[in-house]
Amino acid sequence: MAGTERKLRMIPFGGMGEIGKNMFAFEFEDEILLVDGGLAFPDADMLGVDILVPKIDWIVENAHKVKGWVLTHGHEDHIGGIPYMVRLLPKVPMYGAKLTLGLLRGKFEEFRIKESDVDLRQVSTDDRVKVSKNFTVDFFQMTHSIPDNSGLVIHTPIGRIVHSGDFKLDFHPADGRTSHLHKLAQAGQDGVLLLISDSTNAERPGYTPSERDVMNAVDDIVARAKGRVIVTTFSSHVHRLQNFVRVAEKYDRRVVMEGRSMVKAATIAQELGYLKARNPFASADSLGDLQDDKLLFLCTGSQGQPMAALSRLASGTHRKIQLKKGDTVILSSNPIPGNEEDVGRVINQLYEREVDVYYPPMYKVHASGHASQEELKLILDLTRPRFFVPWHGEMRHQVNHMRLAESMAHPPKKSLIPKNGDVVEVTKDDIKVVGQVDAGVVLIDSVGEVTEPVIRDRQALSEDGVIVIMALASKKSPNVEVITRGVVQGQNGLVKEVERIAQESLIKGIREKRSLADIRDDIFYPVRRYIRKATGRNPLIVPTVIEG
Amino acid sequence: MAGTERKLRMIPFGGMGEIGKNMFAFEFEDEILLVDGGLAFPDADMLGVDILVPKIDWIVENAHKVKGWVLTHGHEDHIGGIPYMVRLLPKVPMYGAKLTLGLLRGKFEEFRIKESDVDLRQVSTDDRVKVSKNFTVDFFQMTHSIPDNSGLVIHTPIGRIVHSGDFKLDFHPADGRTSHLHKLAQAGQDGVLLLISDSTNAERPGYTPSERDVMNAVDDIVARAKGRVIVTTFSSHVHRLQNFVRVAEKYDRRVVMEGRSMVKAATIAQELGYLKARNPFASADSLGDLQDDKLLFLCTGSQGQPMAALSRLASGTHRKIQLKKGDTVILSSNPIPGNEEDVGRVINQLYEREVDVYYPPMYKVHASGHASQEELKLILDLTRPRFFVPWHGEMRHQVNHMRLAESMAHPPKKSLIPKNGDVVEVTKDDIKVVGQVDAGVVLIDSVGEVTEPVIRDRQALSEDGVIVIMALASKKSPNVEVITRGVVQGQNGLVKEVERIAQESLIKGIREKRSLADIRDDIFYPVRRYIRKATGRNPLIVPTVIEG
Repeated sequence: MAGTERKLRMIPFGGMGEIGKNMFAFEFEDEILLVDGGLAFPDADMLGVDILVPKIDWIVENAHKVKGWVLTHGHEDHIGGIPYMVRLLPKVPMYGAKLTLGLLRGKFEEFRIKESDVDLRQVSTDDRVKVSKNFTVDFFQMTHSIPDNSGLVIHTPIGRIVHSGDFKLDFHPADGRTSHLHKLAQAGQDGVLLLISDSTNAERPGYTPSERDVMNAVDDIVARAKGRVIVTTFSSHVHRLQNFVRVAEKYDRRVVMEGRSMVKAATIAQELGYLKARNPFASADSLGDLQDDKLLFLCTGSQGQPMAALSRLASGTHRKIQLKKGDTVILSSNPIPGNEEDVGRVINQLYEREVDVYYPPMYKVHASGHASQEELKLILDLTRPRFFVPWHGEMRHQVNHMRLAESMAHPPKKSLIPKNGDVVEVTKDDIKVVGQVDAGVVLIDSVGEVTEPVIRDRQALSEDGVIVIMALASKKSPNVEVITRGVVQGQNGLVKEVERIAQESLIKGIREKRSLADIRDDIFYPVRRYIRKATGRNPLIVPTVIEG
Repeated sequence: MAGTERKLRMIPFGGMGEIGKNMFAFEFEDEILLVDGGLAFPDADMLGVDILVPKIDWIVENAHKVKGWVLTHGHEDHIGGIPYMVRLLPKVPMYGAKLTLGLLRGKFEEFRIKESDVDLRQVSTDDRVKVSKNFTVDFFQMTHSIPDNSGLVIHTPIGRIVHSGDFKLDFHPADGRTSHLHKLAQAGQDGVLLLISDSTNAERPGYTPSERDVMNAVDDIVARAKGRVIVTTFSSHVHRLQNFVRVAEKYDRRVVMEGRSMVKAATIAQELGYLKARNPFASADSLGDLQDDKLLFLCTGSQGQPMAALSRLASGTHRKIQLKKGDTVILSSNPIPGNEEDVGRVINQLYEREVDVYYPPMYKVHASGHASQEELKLILDLTRPRFFVPWHGEMRHQVNHMRLAESMAHPPKKSLIPKNGDVVEVTKDDIKVVGQVDAGVVLIDSVGEVTEPVIRDRQALSEDGVIVIMALASKKSPNVEVITRGVVQGQNGLVKEVERIAQESLIKGIREKRSLADIRDDIFYPVRRYIRKATGRNPLIVPTVIEG
């Protein structure tokens, strides 16, 4: 009887309505289980912001309840926020697979967080962990664009929650470790209360191609290449790096790593045994007299990042390597939405250098790491959950995933798309949103947190520039100086007129013995009115008045 | 003999290595023929810039030679720059089809250019015009995403130049006016010296779908729609507007135009007879008691523009119309590269409102206006040119178009990809670049020309903000004020430290009786050094020193 009244609460702190900063808190009575802690990358209008991390005030307030932190895999959108959060929370056990913890340790080093400040516990991708009285977690291996990736069966007093993790169903992953679908099937047979599943590609019909297909396409190209081969992909895509190393070895090409993050990721993966190579990797400094057709470069810059190796190669500004006719460049990646222009620029520059360029969709040299519709249906059918929450996607992906679920022969009793911060209450009989906690976002640049007013100022500055007005409130020699930056002057003596208006307000203010703050306002409003009328634009206007 | 020595010169002022601001000058002895005069839209990093127009200094210097200006069609990237250019040039005959001139007249009105200041000459899309002694132009109808679209056969003393114009080969255009391939075939038979052809979709295999396919897909959706239907596409896509009006009439829905540019384009098209409707269009103000299932809205915002009708509907900020469950929204358009994030945001918001949303590629509700590879090959085969210039595309599109040409059974003798401003010399025997003229770009915002330093300042401002330092150089009361905008402060008293540094330089400067300009530099450099070291960022630093 009492059992049916027991409630689980689930709060997503990211990953809903977005692809990025994935994080869940599951609460049962006096215990909280955390899953992942990712970061996100800013939209184009968040000027000068480097990264976004979830706002976890609620978790901090309830920190004493947190019993464990479970990590599904080592991608930035799943672990990249953790260094910002661990400082706010007490030391709790963090469970993750070897590569995941390896990558996380790399971050902790950068942030100068000591191993003794955290409690890292290595698990296999198929382990069972009893986190606390109410939470036991079964990890299960799932294929994805990084090794050591797991989904989770979270056993709670009211039933099983299956969390798919990020996945595609690749029957030919580079390491041969296929998805452990048996555990999903077993959970389905035993009964799944709630399925949380990856929606990234819910708009895509069919199956996502295997990593083996990508390797074969790259193999075909390398087989025919006469000069150097340069390949770029996401540094963390260790499966693909492994396959490229194999292709290089097959054609007797030495592998050269280029770009800081590529070298770092490859080093960690190699040290931990996730990347195997016959010969040590070379660096661009130590090529000796290796012929062009004996080289394969793995380099950063798959998203067209201006400072990355590929962009430098494309623009001819790389310090050590000059591309030339006969070289082959393979972009084994798709632009993430928002990066299309940057990637397009790099591709055009490569064509200008007369190298042979291969990129999707013209060539099948990339495959997504996320499941398409047929794979999603298989997970839905294996688990046959009572409730369903489509996660890891924008609204369009989540809604289409929900429609897929509802179209199944055994559809969930209820599907729900919560927002970040929604408190989702799950009982044996129902799932619903019962409240909200503050789960916004913290914007971070290299200095620290970037607040909303700072962003708003930067937006105004970026569109229309700034007009600085300095006024010297001196009876003897009242004086105004106007400086503009990023402002289009037009032909009508804009600055002169601003000076005139400011001077008038200043002299009037001195005469009437108004306060400096009042004089500042007396300058600001008429100038703003004038600028708007004369130019139709809204530059930032910064008046200051000093007593002289 | 002399004939073989005669030279034609061709200078592209835009449209090479870009999709936008298309314009050619053809020069033969003392005559110049201009083709089109388009504008382009700025890249994301051209902050606050509204449009780009070609820099035509060379044409202005040679204005006395200009004999005529030929317009292929009425899209912005072909006629949008003309209002900025006509003022710089003498009055010359401008030849264009009815709709093209109609749209151009609309622009001239906005710019207050009088009909008497220009010399507009209406031609049909299949006319022959003897422009001057050396230039005779045969227009020929080509299907595209706007009616009254032509390619050109330019007859010159040394041979025929075929300019494809923008095109796809649509066998079922809304107005039934298919491409006039016979003229191309005839030119091919008579001998084509040079083909200039549209490269936009040279990376796409197969054929571009017909407008009829789009209409059928939209018809299927409207047939099943129970509530209101909202359709968005490019306002200038009159073919598609016509097809949507037909679908609305078939299902007894009244057509409502929403958004300024949609109303304007539809009005011009209707007045000139390019858009036919049984009933007058309604406006959102005058819907009376029309039921939801009797309405079809045609609205602006297909690119996710924040102020356009669709974005307001999606965000719930439209003054007159509130979307609700049961409504259907069709995005009959693709995001132009760079607009993906904005369009994605609108789609997500529409899902949140629980309306049914249809968009490509999930639904076939859009087709490009440009030819794919099989169509391009047909043009290459019909014309079998001696020389080939792939135009209207980024480098990637041009190179792939060139490769297509070289793969033909009858390949051109020589292909060339000039840059904007290249002086291309064409004789009967060769085509080559012999020089360059200044053919950059003029950046324009609502005030006027935006110069490079202004853009650079805006870029710095947008990323890192501005630090304004005012120093009062007064022996009695030296004083410094520091104001920041868009700058992240961090926790280390950034402003205090800047004040301290500035104050120190100021006092030292006063003591040593340095000039105001020197004191300004004494403040600037140490502050910049400090900020870079403390934050790793580069805000704009604006010091001013006034005498007190």
